[in-house]
Amino acid sequence: MRRLNANSEDFAKQFARIVNDRRESDENVATDVRAIIQQVRQKGDDALVDLSMRYDKHALTADLSSWRIGKDQCRAAFDMLIPDVRQALVMAAERIRAYHEGQLPQDRDYRDEKNVRLGARWSAVEAAGLYVPGGRAAYPSSLLMNAIPAKVAGVDRLVVTTPTPRGQMNDLVLAAAHICGVDEVWRVGGAQAIAALAYGTQRIQPVDVIVGPGNAWVAEAKRQLYGVVGIDMVAGPSEILVIADEENDPDWIAADLLSQAEHDPSSQSILITDDEGYAAAVEDAVDVLLAQIDTKGVARQSWETHGVVIVVDSLLDDAPALADRLAAEHVQIATDDPEAIFDCIRHAGSVFLGRHTPEAIGDYVAGPNHVLPTGRRARFSSGLSVLDFMKRTSFISLDEKALGELGPAAVTLAEIEGLPAHAASVKVRL
Amino acid sequence: MRRLNANSEDFAKQFARIVNDRRESDENVATDVRAIIQQVRQKGDDALVDLSMRYDKHALTADLSSWRIGKDQCRAAFDMLIPDVRQALVMAAERIRAYHEGQLPQDRDYRDEKNVRLGARWSAVEAAGLYVPGGRAAYPSSLLMNAIPAKVAGVDRLVVTTPTPRGQMNDLVLAAAHICGVDEVWRVGGAQAIAALAYGTQRIQPVDVIVGPGNAWVAEAKRQLYGVVGIDMVAGPSEILVIADEENDPDWIAADLLSQAEHDPSSQSILITDDEGYAAAVEDAVDVLLAQIDTKGVARQSWETHGVVIVVDSLLDDAPALADRLAAEHVQIATDDPEAIFDCIRHAGSVFLGRHTPEAIGDYVAGPNHVLPTGRRARFSSGLSVLDFMKRTSFISLDEKALGELGPAAVTLAEIEGLPAHAASVKVRL
Repeated sequence: MRRLNANSEDFAKQFARIVNDRRESDENVATDVRAIIQQVRQKGDDALVDLSMRYDKHALTADLSSWRIGKDQCRAAFDMLIPDVRQALVMAAERIRAYHEGQLPQDRDYRDEKNVRLGARWSAVEAAGLYVPGGRAAYPSSLLMNAIPAKVAGVDRLVVTTPTPRGQMNDLVLAAAHICGVDEVWRVGGAQAIAALAYGTQRIQPVDVIVGPGNAWVAEAKRQLYGVVGIDMVAGPSEILVIADEENDPDWIAADLLSQAEHDPSSQSILITDDEGYAAAVEDAVDVLLAQIDTKGVARQSWETHGVVIVVDSLLDDAPALADRLAAEHVQIATDDPEAIFDCIRHAGSVFLGRHTPEAIGDYVAGPNHVLPTGRRARFSSGLSVLDFMKRTSFISLDEKALGELGPAAVTLAEIEGLPAHAASVKVRL
Repeated sequence: MRRLNANSEDFAKQFARIVNDRRESDENVATDVRAIIQQVRQKGDDALVDLSMRYDKHALTADLSSWRIGKDQCRAAFDMLIPDVRQALVMAAERIRAYHEGQLPQDRDYRDEKNVRLGARWSAVEAAGLYVPGGRAAYPSSLLMNAIPAKVAGVDRLVVTTPTPRGQMNDLVLAAAHICGVDEVWRVGGAQAIAALAYGTQRIQPVDVIVGPGNAWVAEAKRQLYGVVGIDMVAGPSEILVIADEENDPDWIAADLLSQAEHDPSSQSILITDDEGYAAAVEDAVDVLLAQIDTKGVARQSWETHGVVIVVDSLLDDAPALADRLAAEHVQIATDDPEAIFDCIRHAGSVFLGRHTPEAIGDYVAGPNHVLPTGRRARFSSGLSVLDFMKRTSFISLDEKALGELGPAAVTLAEIEGLPAHAASVKVRL
């Protein structure tokens, strides 16, 4: 953990180092991934059989159940949930659905002053693929957050692929798939799953958009196949920026910081406060909580390597500019008037306002999506939404009179651009 | 040109071949581009000096005017336009601006039934870069279509980079830059320009989003830097699908088909009609027009290699399904009731309705963007819009009571996911 003071001489330099710190691995997997994609494209299901055995020790056989998890199995997993968990998942799903329904875009259709009809129609993609990792990050909440926007968008066919290492399945994920109405669940993982979704195989029909978290191979496969299909954002390690004054219980803020740190050793938690003594109190509270939690190994590594505490003179005057430089995935503002600070922040994935809004509420049950831009990408990208599963078709309609008014200008421009057939297509109609 | 009849035995097979025809080059430039990006990252402006000399024979010297084209120069180019051209460009810009202003998204801010405050705020990216090619495709209309959405979005800084081979500039492009209020114009091209925009150099400040057409090197650089910055879609050769009955003058439809064909030898023009005799008449009209236009070399190559004429029984019953398979960039519906067909089409970049709406009107003056998804990408992506220059920040605010209602479910889910600090951050507040 590093403690910085905004008044220290070399603060600008130290802060710049934090902003530019790349926590993402440069693992060079591009060549491996290219070979895997090629193999799946050429050999289809046979490639999946080979690769699943090699990487997941899972045998894809003539028995369809080795390939696919049926809807009945997902329903059974849902039925077996203990009531508390079932209620929590259902409530989360309902709230996520309600929030995302409000994202559905409006079509446009109007006539302008020249009687030109203009507009745009939105429609859902036909099929979406959702990657669910097999290991530590196989979270049912993540399935809800990725699947529900697709369903709200109106996707016809929602396909999950997930590795089942040594045949092992995650019942919580299957239960979540049941809740979301996932149409197909395939027991395939890694770059080969992304290739199968993009190009299709004998058994797996291709999709149009692929979303969901994954390891470096999965991320690289999505990047290489971007353009063949649509993909969600390139994702990196999670991060939180907490802006808090000394009126907060240090234990609360310590828990907020560690809730990001426990995700991954490369996660980052940053506190900005305006009180030196409070900073120390939070640091102490972090140490106390660290000793208590089962995820202490990961959380301590993250906190010690990437944790930062910054003391500034004034939260309102100083924090927003620092927040914009960081463009963090999560920004929590724990003050009496969080709105005043929020109004000055331009770049953030999601903002959590007030003392009673811990970020974890947004991970599970608040409603907005928890798939958010990381690694300063909030400068130019947004959290997952129904728009990631939709596309827009613009349209234009002119009558003879409107063409008479607009046509000559189009002819002029086509001619200066050296495109005579463009010009002709207008001129013949004038 | 291939003529297909929907009633022929092997139509399905032949049509599938057209759908799967990849007209995009597989030029393997990835390694070159990786080296160029590395060079610009390490050496900054010095790399630009070397690469501009090597590829563009343009000397970037101590004289700033060798690097940058000033606003005064853009204004001068505008002032020198002949009146017809000036009026056409200004009219196009105004109509494009008006259409894109209607795309500005609405913020959300509401309280749900549990008194949880939820919402989302949209904001523009700070800086956008726009690549303008130097050669055949340096179109002023393209500058308008890329720059105006950025300005409407509210981008603070709009930067154009364009190669000036042997020092040569394109005055029409400069005039268009003046009309759009472009903030900076840099005389740098190729993959090195994209790298400079993404990472910045001593002279060029980095941007957040890069858009605009380019050759294979430019496209590959954008793909490799996707994630460091936002980019617009991966673009391929242009295409048009014209759905027309025999009531259209064959000369009109021939001009429409050739208006795509003249863009590039890899462009594709497809006609679907319901009359065998009319198909032949259009083919004859294409041959006549081909003999007349200056772009005949390119247009003939495109038409002969990629042109397709499909005769179906019924436009209304048969054309929409074929159109969806093709998911074409441009779809023109030249019938008396184009709406009936449009209502059945789901995948298209932009649709041109009626006999008096040639696609070229959309290229220049209608208002909607002419940067559209190609190569079947209309299945999952949309034309350029103000949203490409904006991002959304979601927000959540709970009071003590709301946390009391939502908190326990979040704790339950955090615990089953094995994330104790997530659970703690809620529990300490309950």
